[in-house]
Amino acid sequence: MIMAILQGGPLGIFIDVPSLLIVCGGTLGNTLVHYPFKDVFDALNVAKKTLLYKETPVADLIAQLMGFANKARKEGILALQGAMNDVEDEFLQKAMQMAVDGQEPATLRNMLATEVEYIEMRHSKGANIFVSIAGYSPAMGMVGTLIGLVQMLQNMADPSSIGPAMAIALLTTFYGAVIANVFCLPIAGKLKNRSEGEILTKTLMIEGMQSILSGENPRIMEQKLHAFIAPKLRESTFNK
Amino acid sequence: MIMAILQGGPLGIFIDVPSLLIVCGGTLGNTLVHYPFKDVFDALNVAKKTLLYKETPVADLIAQLMGFANKARKEGILALQGAMNDVEDEFLQKAMQMAVDGQEPATLRNMLATEVEYIEMRHSKGANIFVSIAGYSPAMGMVGTLIGLVQMLQNMADPSSIGPAMAIALLTTFYGAVIANVFCLPIAGKLKNRSEGEILTKTLMIEGMQSILSGENPRIMEQKLHAFIAPKLRESTFNK
Amino acid sequence: MIMAILQGGPLGIFIDVPSLLIVCGGTLGNTLVHYPFKDVFDALNVAKKTLLYKETPVADLIAQLMGFANKARKEGILALQGAMNDVEDEFLQKAMQMAVDGQEPATLRNMLATEVEYIEMRHSKGANIFVSIAGYSPAMGMVGTLIGLVQMLQNMADPSSIGPAMAIALLTTFYGAVIANVFCLPIAGKLKNRSEGEILTKTLMIEGMQSILSGENPRIMEQKLHAFIAPKLRESTFNK
Amino acid sequence: MIMAILQGGPLGIFIDVPSLLIVCGGTLGNTLVHYPFKDVFDALNVAKKTLLYKETPVADLIAQLMGFANKARKEGILALQGAMNDVEDEFLQKAMQMAVDGQEPATLRNMLATEVEYIEMRHSKGANIFVSIAGYSPAMGMVGTLIGLVQMLQNMADPSSIGPAMAIALLTTFYGAVIANVFCLPIAGKLKNRSEGEILTKTLMIEGMQSILSGENPRIMEQKLHAFIAPKLRESTFNK
Amino acid sequence: MIMAILQGGPLGIFIDVPSLLIVCGGTLGNTLVHYPFKDVFDALNVAKKTLLYKETPVADLIAQLMGFANKARKEGILALQGAMNDVEDEFLQKAMQMAVDGQEPATLRNMLATEVEYIEMRHSKGANIFVSIAGYSPAMGMVGTLIGLVQMLQNMADPSSIGPAMAIALLTTFYGAVIANVFCLPIAGKLKNRSEGEILTKTLMIEGMQSILSGENPRIMEQKLHAFIAPKLRESTFNK
Repeated sequence: MIMAILQGGPLGIFIDVPSLLIVCGGTLGNTLVHYPFKDVFDALNVAKKTLLYKETPVADLIAQLMGFANKARKEGILALQGAMNDVEDEFLQKAMQMAVDGQEPATLRNMLATEVEYIEMRHSKGANIFVSIAGYSPAMGMVGTLIGLVQMLQNMADPSSIGPAMAIALLTTFYGAVIANVFCLPIAGKLKNRSEGEILTKTLMIEGMQSILSGENPRIMEQKLHAFIAPKLRESTFNK
Repeated sequence: MIMAILQGGPLGIFIDVPSLLIVCGGTLGNTLVHYPFKDVFDALNVAKKTLLYKETPVADLIAQLMGFANKARKEGILALQGAMNDVEDEFLQKAMQMAVDGQEPATLRNMLATEVEYIEMRHSKGANIFVSIAGYSPAMGMVGTLIGLVQMLQNMADPSSIGPAMAIALLTTFYGAVIANVFCLPIAGKLKNRSEGEILTKTLMIEGMQSILSGENPRIMEQKLHAFIAPKLRESTFNK
Repeated sequence: MIMAILQGGPLGIFIDVPSLLIVCGGTLGNTLVHYPFKDVFDALNVAKKTLLYKETPVADLIAQLMGFANKARKEGILALQGAMNDVEDEFLQKAMQMAVDGQEPATLRNMLATEVEYIEMRHSKGANIFVSIAGYSPAMGMVGTLIGLVQMLQNMADPSSIGPAMAIALLTTFYGAVIANVFCLPIAGKLKNRSEGEILTKTLMIEGMQSILSGENPRIMEQKLHAFIAPKLRESTFNK
Repeated sequence: MIMAILQGGPLGIFIDVPSLLIVCGGTLGNTLVHYPFKDVFDALNVAKKTLLYKETPVADLIAQLMGFANKARKEGILALQGAMNDVEDEFLQKAMQMAVDGQEPATLRNMLATEVEYIEMRHSKGANIFVSIAGYSPAMGMVGTLIGLVQMLQNMADPSSIGPAMAIALLTTFYGAVIANVFCLPIAGKLKNRSEGEILTKTLMIEGMQSILSGENPRIMEQKLHAFIAPKLRESTFNK
Repeated sequence: MIMAILQGGPLGIFIDVPSLLIVCGGTLGNTLVHYPFKDVFDALNVAKKTLLYKETPVADLIAQLMGFANKARKEGILALQGAMNDVEDEFLQKAMQMAVDGQEPATLRNMLATEVEYIEMRHSKGANIFVSIAGYSPAMGMVGTLIGLVQMLQNMADPSSIGPAMAIALLTTFYGAVIANVFCLPIAGKLKNRSEGEILTKTLMIEGMQSILSGENPRIMEQKLHAFIAPKLRESTFNK
């Protein structure tokens, strides 16, 4: 793709420092009025982590929960205390701790569901920061192009300068479109996808721990958990 | 339509490899940041199947469910075990297996409703991938046109080259608009339609199996199922 | 309005067959990928009927329901069997049949509410087809204009041909805007309005039949039904 | 603002009858396909009233309701019959009549809540008519500009006529933008604001009459009603 | 950024009083038709306060609520009367007063939840005023540019004046874009963020006071409150 662009001329003509300052500076300024500095900084961090993060397959999680169900059925709910050390996910650990502490299934579900709801809110805040930047940057690009056009139109003494002046005026629109469409929107989309995946994982954990606490039949519990995922991902632990 | 275009000149002038690379490469890149590679690949597969798929008429499904109701009424719910072999739809098979296994009507409904809800989520994910591509491709088309314009404006020594250069710059906008409007949006719409049809089918299956399990009067069950479909599709099995 | 256009020149300059083919052919193609042929055909039929259809005033419907309430109060619910012959609306007939058949008020409400919900879904599908066409046609208009511009820019040997070539290129945008804004959007709006009117009518029928079945006081039933309509349309049957 | 425009030339150049006919005629035509004539006419009437209407402060309404509560507590619920004559609002009169007629608090709330819901629907219909006009008028403005451009481009014999022809072509876009942004959108916004205010008023009336009917402690009733309004508007009737 | 703009010419060319009057006057006019003068004035005040306001960390609020819980557990609910003097937040004071007055937990929650709902409505009204201005100002900018273009095109006698006239015509678009994107949208976003923060704070207060009134175990109460906030903000008061 970059080679395709190079066919038309050197990349250098796409770099203009004042234009970059107008678009990036303007967008950053707007974003920092809109969101606290800490939130913007956090969002950048989360974005970096997100792009490098590898999800655990849901099938493995279901197998793990089925293991806990069988353990709890044979050795009692307190046996989960020992199993907690192997669990990496903090949310699942908390759910197991609540189960071991003897909470009612309904209390466990309510409290964890509230937590999931607010996790979702915080996640969508991160994604929304990128959506906002994707909204401000083309607007600042247009503002920059208008600035360039007004300056050009006021000084039309030398007709041969019109072309390059117009080219530079268009660069801010170009920067705005690239920032929005090549960086911010795909990252915001990625963050939303990841959030959905995490919410699904946490919903399965709540559903599973509630089944275990209620002493439900493991086959029915597995059927319930399988209802959340695509048929081709469903591997019964009973057919193994 | 293609003949109409040919009237204005040869099709060859609409093909420019660097422009195609900018739009398609850029759109693909954005899409792969936004969605995992596997999901994009799956979406293409699902789209291919969807366009070739033929739906079963809902009237036939209702007739089939009425047959099961009569069988269950006469020979008991376990008689559905034998009928399951003739059923192609995996979802209906699962519902019947749950009925034969002696699940409560409410449990059956809850579990299957969860499954339908998550099927809907997965379907809309597929459609959303095409909607996202339809959003990225015109944006990349505009980016490509801006690149072409900047290159053209920087090199205006030869006035006679302005026309063709502008034509090539506009080609990326053209590609972006065609990818979005001729391919992605109609396919996304089709996928949403198909999904709605499938959800309706599965809702009828849940409603029907619950009626059968509750031992409801077949006439009332038929009235209930008919409420989901258009009056002109309603063919009572009792008038035959 | 057409005279206003004629002031600027003959209407003939607004007709260009290749342009029409590009916009109409492209829009039709997209629509037929998006929706099954049958649905598009149905939508056109429904649109025709809708534009010619005359609504029954809700006040008349309430008076009719009050008549049934008084009849049922005096002669028993089975007396509605005779009154059914005068009822033209199939939905009301069905509701009365269910009442005469001795259904519970709650069952009657649930079944009819499901029916209304799915009627609404089918109606909105029809309106959505027009909304989709209104989305595709300006896009195809823009695609056509881009085709025309590219062809024009590639052949700029004769400067005097630029004006007419540009005029023809703009015609596709014009066709797209007219199809969307003069035909599809107002019709889609009309269909939505009609659907809302029909849903209100059916909601009144459900509410009324449930009151009759529950043997509610006719004055209270009338107050309930009046709550759905504007004060100035409320004509009590008791003040007559 | 008009003086600012006059600096650039006489206002007369902004008036072109054929352009006005295209935009206004086209917009009116679309609107009348979309909505019945009666509804459009009503919307204009409502808009006129709305712009001249003066709201009653909610604090006064709460004081009035507290007065009724004290009266009902001392002299019995039937004492409200006499107080009804001083009430101007028809909705509050109806609520009081229902209370005096001995309706259950729950029935009173359900019936009045249905009424408020449908009032809201009718109000939003009025606002939506203006929103629709605000959508059609810029579209018709663009259609008019396209007509003007096509006519101009077809007759480019005299270069000196291009400027004024282009100016007239742009007038329709100007008219469309002014109709939408200077008239329709602010009026639609005003109607929505007024509707929200009226819904809040009616919600307070329902809440208040239900408290009175349930014989709730007036202090608690006042606290409940104050929860609906801003702290600085809360004036307790007990501190006076 | 301003230095970047200065590279292209003096700032003076971006100031044109008639253009400013058209955009600002028009936008103000539209806004005052849309919203009552008092609401617009209030919104400006709220915006000023918001930008200078410093939020209390939620962790501190939870610690404060835990302190009240322990006090109420040891010395009885009436002991909160004394603690109320140290509370600055009026909403928390009201909640505590209601607890001391002996309200049922459910009544307390209902009344305060209504209050939070209406606070949210009033907040979003303030943000919406800025969103509306951000919608009107680019529209008025476009109207101003159309006015400038029409005036310019009608007077094309002197070709050398076209550049500056066009520059001035574009200034209104520039003003509209700056008002919307640099001022109104970021401020509206900030107001929405602040509102969300305040709603979260008030939700924690309701949740906490209800736990205290119900005499819930402080450890469980803390777990409940922590579910609302990010894991890294959770500092147990029991580990200190």
